[in-house]
Amino acid sequence: MKASEALRRLGEERPLVHHLTNYVTVNLVANVTLSTGALPVMAHAVEEVEEMAATASALVINMGTLDPPWIEAMVRAGKEANRRGIPVVLDPVGAGATRFRTETPEKLLSEIDFAAVCGNAGEISTLAGLSAEVRGVESIGGDAKTAVVKAARRLGATVAATGATDHISDGEQILTVENGHPLMGRIVGSGCASTAVIGCFAAVGGGDVLDPETVAAALACFGRAGEISAKRSDGPGTFEPRLLDALASLADNPSVLNGALRIREASVG
Amino acid sequence: MKASEALRRLGEERPLVHHLTNYVTVNLVANVTLSTGALPVMAHAVEEVEEMAATASALVINMGTLDPPWIEAMVRAGKEANRRGIPVVLDPVGAGATRFRTETPEKLLSEIDFAAVCGNAGEISTLAGLSAEVRGVESIGGDAKTAVVKAARRLGATVAATGATDHISDGEQILTVENGHPLMGRIVGSGCASTAVIGCFAAVGGGDVLDPETVAAALACFGRAGEISAKRSDGPGTFEPRLLDALASLADNPSVLNGALRIREASVG
Amino acid sequence: MKASEALRRLGEERPLVHHLTNYVTVNLVANVTLSTGALPVMAHAVEEVEEMAATASALVINMGTLDPPWIEAMVRAGKEANRRGIPVVLDPVGAGATRFRTETPEKLLSEIDFAAVCGNAGEISTLAGLSAEVRGVESIGGDAKTAVVKAARRLGATVAATGATDHISDGEQILTVENGHPLMGRIVGSGCASTAVIGCFAAVGGGDVLDPETVAAALACFGRAGEISAKRSDGPGTFEPRLLDALASLADNPSVLNGALRIREASVG
Repeated sequence: MKASEALRRLGEERPLVHHLTNYVTVNLVANVTLSTGALPVMAHAVEEVEEMAATASALVINMGTLDPPWIEAMVRAGKEANRRGIPVVLDPVGAGATRFRTETPEKLLSEIDFAAVCGNAGEISTLAGLSAEVRGVESIGGDAKTAVVKAARRLGATVAATGATDHISDGEQILTVENGHPLMGRIVGSGCASTAVIGCFAAVGGGDVLDPETVAAALACFGRAGEISAKRSDGPGTFEPRLLDALASLADNPSVLNGALRIREASVG
Repeated sequence: MKASEALRRLGEERPLVHHLTNYVTVNLVANVTLSTGALPVMAHAVEEVEEMAATASALVINMGTLDPPWIEAMVRAGKEANRRGIPVVLDPVGAGATRFRTETPEKLLSEIDFAAVCGNAGEISTLAGLSAEVRGVESIGGDAKTAVVKAARRLGATVAATGATDHISDGEQILTVENGHPLMGRIVGSGCASTAVIGCFAAVGGGDVLDPETVAAALACFGRAGEISAKRSDGPGTFEPRLLDALASLADNPSVLNGALRIREASVG
Repeated sequence: MKASEALRRLGEERPLVHHLTNYVTVNLVANVTLSTGALPVMAHAVEEVEEMAATASALVINMGTLDPPWIEAMVRAGKEANRRGIPVVLDPVGAGATRFRTETPEKLLSEIDFAAVCGNAGEISTLAGLSAEVRGVESIGGDAKTAVVKAARRLGATVAATGATDHISDGEQILTVENGHPLMGRIVGSGCASTAVIGCFAAVGGGDVLDPETVAAALACFGRAGEISAKRSDGPGTFEPRLLDALASLADNPSVLNGALRIREASVG
């Protein structure tokens, strides 16, 4: 699905996107979701997590601040979404940083079918079984292109690695996205927010599988918002509210995205 | 109490407002509280929740991200506040969305006497025993006027339903508030923030019962801040910091509210 | 270490700073950390807290929203940091407000060696064993100068009390910092953010002890960012993003701090 089409449908359908996310960037994730036109909901109690997931149009699982009760909630919500054909998107925040963060996505991936997985190069390299340097929740390096292909094949899902250039693959095809701005790396949560936009696009994506085009469209759209916002910002602090302004403005006028998105096909070899 | 009088007293008395709230909008709620002149505190551990509530001038309970230990903390804090005549305000976020969110306010309402309850039309309809469509934590419809009267009579408290027009009733009288701006619906947490302002006004309201005039004054004051902030914003992202600027500016000069608040009496019939 | 030297090293080394902090101001704390050049990570599960602390260059423990599992995580992370010579900084948020908040820093101080402790005058007075008025998490009074000296001697660490004038002491020397702006007291989390900057400076400070000069440099640097940001703000709402802009700008050009910091030595008598 193209970005303009996804935004148009988000504005018309106002789908519910259920987030099981971290307490660091949760407010940004919720506001990004709302700015695309979708309705965010955060609910984690085992008493309601399956019922809430069942009413949502997409579920986003983000490992940012992980602990065992949350992992249980993620598994329950993910399985319920799977039963109902609701797409589930994973952000494996910090995979590779500690044993707990490396083992948890393995557990989630063994119990839940994901429509898409999105992380930084280090996190995706970890999921691909490649060595990577992850410092806390920051990627210090890693070959994103190799990682997304290998991870996609291993996980059987579309996988994206965000960075100066985003790489997206389903194991066959590779797409790159050049939209974005360095200020996105200077605010906390731009990765979480990218994955949230993928979740929103999934909510109108028509199924429990996401193709690389739709994932690339989500990342390009978010990157485009970053480009617009950078022009009106004086630093990372003013960049963040301007990013929400830009995203809401794109959602109100999706056609302005036409011609502004730099999505390319890359060769696998 | 009029809004200008409440703000003047908040600035003089700097009362402590204790919030048991959600982790999505907690920062906004704390900053909104501080911007009115009150001092916010968030504390949820059973080890201290009663002692903290006992030192506060108002307690605000918000169900945004609910789980059983928090419900226990809410009950303990609410009962302690009741014992001491400290007003308690409830925001039943998401009531109607899941069974857990419909049953929890019933439990809270059976154990705690609330000075005021504030939610969206769907949530208040749920508390009134009327059918309502709640998508996640968003209200999709519902007759706010009928709902506030019925809920107020059922709960024995002043009840407010926020929306393009806010409705407030104690079961006898109905007030409407027309202040506000559509951008308030495009940021996450404007509902939570509205209830926080009611909590601040309750902290200087002189008792453990809130009359409809004071609740309407709080909502009109917050709506007025939204109107001011909308003029200086380029979208939802820049609207949120400007909303805090506007609220702080009103708190510094409460007299500018005179004549700017659109509070009307409506007929019950 | 001077502030310009600390910022230069933060930009070069990009050290990991591990925060065990509260859910009210966590986003600001993370963004402040990133704006100085350090990499923030928040992780609290007992399954990973020691492993994460072991990979960090500094650990910041903030008691803002306390409960027993978090206290256990703080003790585990703190002890691991101590074993490895990683500096640990404490923000005793709300010490004095409840028995739980008065006893918890005592427990932490008995189990962990802190490189520095930073709070408001009321909190530091409480740690010093002096009487103080703490309303929620706000200090209402207290003699900061006496408190920092007494607390530093009692705790065997450098202690800072933030306020209109910041006071810093290791029990022998007293430094004062005059940088800052009243708007810092009108946003939630400026105290948490101050301590975060001390944690960042500790990450490049070269050991598990922080001298008063380095703590004063951190507070003066943050205060200077507040001065810059106040000039471009219309109130507390716009002040917060501008504060991050200012901090990032100082981190990009540390030499502009030369001559702008107002750090003085005060007499102990």
